[in-house]
Amino acid sequence: MAEGNPGILFVLSAPSGTGKSTVARAVVGNLKELEFSVSYTTRPPRPDEEDGKDYHFIERQRFEEMVEAGAFLEWAEVYGNLYGTGLETTRRALADGRDLLLDIDIQGARKVRKGPLGSVSVMILPPDYATLEARLAGRGSENEQEKHLRLAEALAEAGAYKDFDYMVVNDDLDSTILVVEAIVRAERRRTERCAQQADAILATFKL
Amino acid sequence: MAEGNPGILFVLSAPSGTGKSTVARAVVGNLKELEFSVSYTTRPPRPDEEDGKDYHFIERQRFEEMVEAGAFLEWAEVYGNLYGTGLETTRRALADGRDLLLDIDIQGARKVRKGPLGSVSVMILPPDYATLEARLAGRGSENEQEKHLRLAEALAEAGAYKDFDYMVVNDDLDSTILVVEAIVRAERRRTERCAQQADAILATFKL
Repeated sequence: MAEGNPGILFVLSAPSGTGKSTVARAVVGNLKELEFSVSYTTRPPRPDEEDGKDYHFIERQRFEEMVEAGAFLEWAEVYGNLYGTGLETTRRALADGRDLLLDIDIQGARKVRKGPLGSVSVMILPPDYATLEARLAGRGSENEQEKHLRLAEALAEAGAYKDFDYMVVNDDLDSTILVVEAIVRAERRRTERCAQQADAILATFKL
Repeated sequence: MAEGNPGILFVLSAPSGTGKSTVARAVVGNLKELEFSVSYTTRPPRPDEEDGKDYHFIERQRFEEMVEAGAFLEWAEVYGNLYGTGLETTRRALADGRDLLLDIDIQGARKVRKGPLGSVSVMILPPDYATLEARLAGRGSENEQEKHLRLAEALAEAGAYKDFDYMVVNDDLDSTILVVEAIVRAERRRTERCAQQADAILATFKL
């Protein structure tokens, strides 16, 4: 964030197997004043996880009530567990001037982009499909039908890149991290976000 | 640049005394595939300067003919010498996929922004007026009228920040260089500039 300005909601998405979460963790680890958004989930906490820090852990019934009430910026079911980004918690963090990173799927990114808080969205793409396949291999044998299904899904996901503000090709992890960090640093300096700071500087122009 | 894409014309401006040229030289020195635009000038070459590399050195009459012919993206007279950015040389460099940096004054930046090639423009501001004054001091004694004139000019220049895409406060030279580099890296990854690369990746999605 720039002093006194509202925070920015960064969204990072990618077809599965592209290395998105590795990139997200590195960027949040490296940059001051960028933090993960704390999601809600119905998944039980793991031993090392802290409620309110890693996730807001809630019961499925409460989650479903929140969905009904429109309390999520986006939500999704993954392997039987529900995950969601709270509208109010996110709004408050941004109002406090905190920059947030959301590591979410492409459907989620679309909902956030259309939501009331805006976002700066980044799509990570693999250098080619062979690389993606190789990264996803070792999940056990798949039949031809499963492979086709996975290809179709990856193609649909990657094809959504046009809806994102930025597109980064993950052919080298360090370069990808550097570029995503650059996007965060650059967006903080977009003029429309810095008017308050600029006006404070202009106010010092006197003899 | 991203592979196969046209280059980007970056414009760096600042009120005098803000450290713009130091930042520009560092950024061009640090980043691969970013180069200074080669300007035209009527100033005679210095011993270490090479025609066509440092500047295109031309006679005043030729310069004035080019002005008449609309051959400059922007031009200005500084201490009796004319300096200008050639429209055609710049257009060709961008078409070759080269990213260019223009280190020019705020009037020039305005002309480039309104010109046919577009630009990504960055304004550098001092942290406050006292810092600017201190940097400009040592130019010899000024009377009160001269000081007021300088203040008015600096205020008018700094006040133009709203017309720029990005605004960076130069309170620490290394941070300023880092942020301007980040802007270059980030802008290269804006989706609208990477469609060709993304489509080439999508074309590899097959079994």
